Amino acid sequence: MTVLVFGTGLIGTSVALALRAKGADVWLSDRDEATARLAADLGAGTVVPDVRDAKGIADVAVLAMPPAAVAAALALGQEHGVADVYTDVASVKGLPVEQVRQLGCDLSSYVPGHPLAGRERHGPAAARADLFLGRTWALCPLPETSPAAVEAVTALVLACGADPVITDPETHDQWVALVSHVPHLVAAAMAARLAPSVVPADALRLAGQGLRDVTRIAAGDSALWTQILSANAGPVAEVLGAVAVDLSAAARALAGVSAETPADVTDLLERGQAGVARIPGKHGGQPRNFTVVQVVIPDQPGELARLFNAAGAAGVNIEDVRIEHSPGLPVGVAELSVRPDQAAALLDAMEAGGWPVRR
Amino acid sequence: MTVLVFGTGLIGTSVALALRAKGADVWLSDRDEATARLAADLGAGTVVPDVRDAKGIADVAVLAMPPAAVAAALALGQEHGVADVYTDVASVKGLPVEQVRQLGCDLSSYVPGHPLAGRERHGPAAARADLFLGRTWALCPLPETSPAAVEAVTALVLACGADPVITDPETHDQWVALVSHVPHLVAAAMAARLAPSVVPADALRLAGQGLRDVTRIAAGDSALWTQILSANAGPVAEVLGAVAVDLSAAARALAGVSAETPADVTDLLERGQAGVARIPGKHGGQPRNFTVVQVVIPDQPGELARLFNAAGAAGVNIEDVRIEHSPGLPVGVAELSVRPDQAAALLDAMEAGGWPVRR
Repeated sequence: MTVLVFGTGLIGTSVALALRAKGADVWLSDRDEATARLAADLGAGTVVPDVRDAKGIADVAVLAMPPAAVAAALALGQEHGVADVYTDVASVKGLPVEQVRQLGCDLSSYVPGHPLAGRERHGPAAARADLFLGRTWALCPLPETSPAAVEAVTALVLACGADPVITDPETHDQWVALVSHVPHLVAAAMAARLAPSVVPADALRLAGQGLRDVTRIAAGDSALWTQILSANAGPVAEVLGAVAVDLSAAARALAGVSAETPADVTDLLERGQAGVARIPGKHGGQPRNFTVVQVVIPDQPGELARLFNAAGAAGVNIEDVRIEHSPGLPVGVAELSVRPDQAAALLDAMEAGGWPVRR
Repeated sequence: MTVLVFGTGLIGTSVALALRAKGADVWLSDRDEATARLAADLGAGTVVPDVRDAKGIADVAVLAMPPAAVAAALALGQEHGVADVYTDVASVKGLPVEQVRQLGCDLSSYVPGHPLAGRERHGPAAARADLFLGRTWALCPLPETSPAAVEAVTALVLACGADPVITDPETHDQWVALVSHVPHLVAAAMAARLAPSVVPADALRLAGQGLRDVTRIAAGDSALWTQILSANAGPVAEVLGAVAVDLSAAARALAGVSAETPADVTDLLERGQAGVARIPGKHGGQPRNFTVVQVVIPDQPGELARLFNAAGAAGVNIEDVRIEHSPGLPVGVAELSVRPDQAAALLDAMEAGGWPVRR
């Protein structure tokens, strides 16, 4: 397979690196030629100086750029016939699809796509060949898209180690509103209550892991998120409005100013419980239940190594680790997640190694 | 110091174990005598068969029971003169204080308290002497409370390894509404959007760590949380209402049905960023910035041990670990948090050990 990656930022360069690792020929282009050269220096492929001179250069062109830039790039690529098939990686699909239709592009060779992968850093230097390993990659073919185009892009997705999910642009945008965009605004609205004008620092000394987890993603770049939310405004507004209605109802029930009873609050809590149980775990697929083993450890170099040595020697694979420190104290608690059938062996190994465990 | 722990569940027994470890004499009582005996068997102290016969037995009595049971226990203890000073550990303070006043208890010897510590498990068997190590413990003396009583309970809190924060009952309840109770409802309202009737399983394959973090605490017991929220209804309703207003406004701005512009959305995002930056980190005190080093590791026993060995040999103390697996794939990414001045040494050690690192 020969691929042209048009846009060599984090995602484009990662696609290029992943495909190169599978032996594909990769051509690179970016509106900033220095960026394309950096990607090439990282082993991502060979720079095409001008895509206008690159007729028939690739089987598939990957348009790796922000949503608003996709349509013009597709039109340019098709005008000069650089590839047989085109896909993009933008995180919303309605906007580029609408613009592509307006420009009168050939839709039979275009497969809108969105890999669910990213990093907090940007640019080709942050790219990784394994960025898409095991990640979901949404493909949203249009009614006009040819089966051969879908087949070619699916092969590219699989070559990147990702897991293709086929849907349509409207459904995709509703889904990402629900699992990504609305959670971001919900986290922001919670964190926004912690303003210094109303909340003294002492109040935040009462904060536990719950508040940290609920608000963590609100630390993201606000300009970038304004763009993302604006590009998917309709679906976000719909889900967000429903969340706000539930919260208003709970607030009224608790304030006692409506006919609602605490039963409504219980109902919201139970719907929440049911919802969270549906989210697949880190390993994908069905949520997996691990047993958590807690071990008290000194907060010093080498201690975790001893602990993992002991677990390894007992043949136990630790699936996840979480460390809770106490401020200013010389000990912490390591929470080790293991398969339930390995918990007893791990507890025995920890006790044998002299660590205080909690059964 | 001689202490009576009245109520030997998780918190009461943990207080007893912590104080025993510091050499205090501890008496135990529970309305279920078998529970008190189990705590005694765990080394938490000596059972008092009937507190009515225990006049003058303790310097301090710790009432470790749900909020609604505190007032009757204080009245009973004072009627029989079991201790000089009383404190409780209930997670809301307004309700027990109101009931204590109604019962006409002696307020000079009562220091309402709330240790910010807990576990997902209950009962004396789950108790730990180190449960309060480095945790915040709110003390909410009343205007009538004597300085000597505050002094005695502060000494008890410090003996448990906790960090006392003095406030008043009303302020305490506003603070826990903000940092604990409202985040729970916000997580529930987000998770409640994931009902199977409207969200197919494929949509949830697009979920990332953000959605998991925002909704994690919504998995908590809904009956227990209904009680907690009802006992602190006023303060929760106030903060929750403000969150709902912000979310409604954002939804309207995005839907384009109001005069608000996306600038309002940006404003909410920026307020969220500012708020999340104020939350102290795991280590307490000011949020600490760690550098995160990412290392690709095979998902097999012994691999983390090798990695931590290499870090320990390089004198690097790993402050936190997070492991991201790819579904069905034999590798994962370990994200190691270290002090910024140790990141270079860790990267060198990882590279020298043959792990692919991302600089």
